[in-house]
Amino acid sequence: MSARVGRYVRMIATPGDGAALAEGMLRVAEGMRAAPGCELYIVNRTPDEEDAVWVTEVWTDEASSEAALERDLGEAGLGAVLPLLAGPPEYIELTPVGGPGLT
Amino acid sequence: MSARVGRYVRMIATPGDGAALAEGMLRVAEGMRAAPGCELYIVNRTPDEEDAVWVTEVWTDEASSEAALERDLGEAGLGAVLPLLAGPPEYIELTPVGGPGLT
Repeated sequence: MSARVGRYVRMIATPGDGAALAEGMLRVAEGMRAAPGCELYIVNRTPDEEDAVWVTEVWTDEASSEAALERDLGEAGLGAVLPLLAGPPEYIELTPVGGPGLT
Repeated sequence: MSARVGRYVRMIATPGDGAALAEGMLRVAEGMRAAPGCELYIVNRTPDEEDAVWVTEVWTDEASSEAALERDLGEAGLGAVLPLLAGPPEYIELTPVGGPGLT
């Protein structure tokens, strides 16, 4: 059995574009419903930082995660939000080990 | 309708105690299955930081989150892991807006 992988992705929008970035990432997230191995792809805003969007990802394995990223960049979703970013996304890589919300 | 709330909790164990902290937090997480309003309580380790544990929480509303925290500190779970912590946990407060994994 391959191990689950996850990450927190921190994206910062150009000033004033936090809501637009969140909307764009919600469209990306809707597309991820069809991605094999996608367990979580939750878009969050934060009360502490108006232009930040955090995405919580969990995948059944590394291969699923990589396949979805390649597909998504090639098709629509993430490409459409890139112009809203003030800089490159930052990642906290995770190894999910259990708890409510994992099937 | 009240808004969902979430957070990422970063906990650092005393040196060498990352695995023990993750095990303790898994016990806390199992207890959260019975907590009203708990949608996610996922315990993660990270390949980048051996003694770190991250918890991904999503609650149906702020009141559920607060009620569970009070109950848990009073009963067993979190109290048992406190001696493993090198310092106070850090929190990134979130407002989940959507995506796969939210019901």
